[in-house]
Amino acid sequence: MFRRNYSSALLEEAVDQLATLPGIGRRTALRLALHLLGEPRENVEQFTGALVRLKRDIRHCPVCGMISDDGNCPVCSDTRRDRTVVCVVESLRDVLSIENTGQYSGLYHILGGIISPIDGIGPGDLRIRELVDRLEAGTISEVVMALSTSMEGETTAYYLYKQISRFPVKVTAIARGVGFGDDLEYTDELTLGRSIANRQLFNP
Amino acid sequence: MFRRNYSSALLEEAVDQLATLPGIGRRTALRLALHLLGEPRENVEQFTGALVRLKRDIRHCPVCGMISDDGNCPVCSDTRRDRTVVCVVESLRDVLSIENTGQYSGLYHILGGIISPIDGIGPGDLRIRELVDRLEAGTISEVVMALSTSMEGETTAYYLYKQISRFPVKVTAIARGVGFGDDLEYTDELTLGRSIANRQLFNP
Repeated sequence: MFRRNYSSALLEEAVDQLATLPGIGRRTALRLALHLLGEPRENVEQFTGALVRLKRDIRHCPVCGMISDDGNCPVCSDTRRDRTVVCVVESLRDVLSIENTGQYSGLYHILGGIISPIDGIGPGDLRIRELVDRLEAGTISEVVMALSTSMEGETTAYYLYKQISRFPVKVTAIARGVGFGDDLEYTDELTLGRSIANRQLFNP
Repeated sequence: MFRRNYSSALLEEAVDQLATLPGIGRRTALRLALHLLGEPRENVEQFTGALVRLKRDIRHCPVCGMISDDGNCPVCSDTRRDRTVVCVVESLRDVLSIENTGQYSGLYHILGGIISPIDGIGPGDLRIRELVDRLEAGTISEVVMALSTSMEGETTAYYLYKQISRFPVKVTAIARGVGFGDDLEYTDELTLGRSIANRQLFNP
């Protein structure tokens, strides 16, 4: 009697759109749509307005790819940071994660993805040229690779290494090993093996 | 260094808004916001547009409270439905759930909530007057209560019963019992007790 059990094309369109979000299935999308439908109109306008402004007004730093509200990169413009070290990451989310640790005070370089032939993403789709430009400027002495250990991450790191090894910079990678709170028993062989090979002086 | 670990008031506003959705915490909200930020602008406009239209353009039936795109209630205007039976539910979501079963062909009455003093919701905030008006019209012979078994649901059902018992209508309630696939062992006493008291002829 009802098309796909909804009585409304408007509701269905909203559910379709909400279901495009990562981790949101159609059932959850319906719940979210009905929640919004039950909210006062000004709340929904505030909600959608915030998302419109997010996409429309946010600025990306042309050097590192970091976001800002006013075009003034909060990382690149911070004089307290070490301007000789650049950490290469896949996405903005990785920057936020690393910042959360409070353990890094250098600059960043957001690639905007990783090389993934299956998804049709090649080196030309990433901000690799911009990284090379930064190295050519000559002020950077270390590049820290902080890419994922997936096949695509390793491929990207290798490709980058070939591009930047001609510069007089130290190229490092974040340490791999057994995570805090992880059980040795359940740690995969590759990680545990790397963790033993890279063992460090016990320093309690 | 960054306020609440985000570098952007725009991002933070989007996360705040996404976190108002039911079941979405701040961590998930950040993930959703970063996803939208990475999408093409037209996709985000389609996304927010669908939600704006949902709230702005959807119509509620003045009789039963059901939604429609054009003001023509899909339930009330359906001549194949039994117009002598009205099922009283809390929300639109309950209507969709009951419609999914394919077991009900009568009309609905959406209350728009249940009586909940803690949340400041009294009888005057619900569509009870509209239900009484429908009964006064004299064409309805049965009212099916399909409210939740919570304290608030029971209170609302009792209040409704007092309002409508003066009309010559049969008042029924949906059956309570052990659900399909539920273990007797883990069914609460109240449900199991009701299920035994309301036992029916075995009809395999």
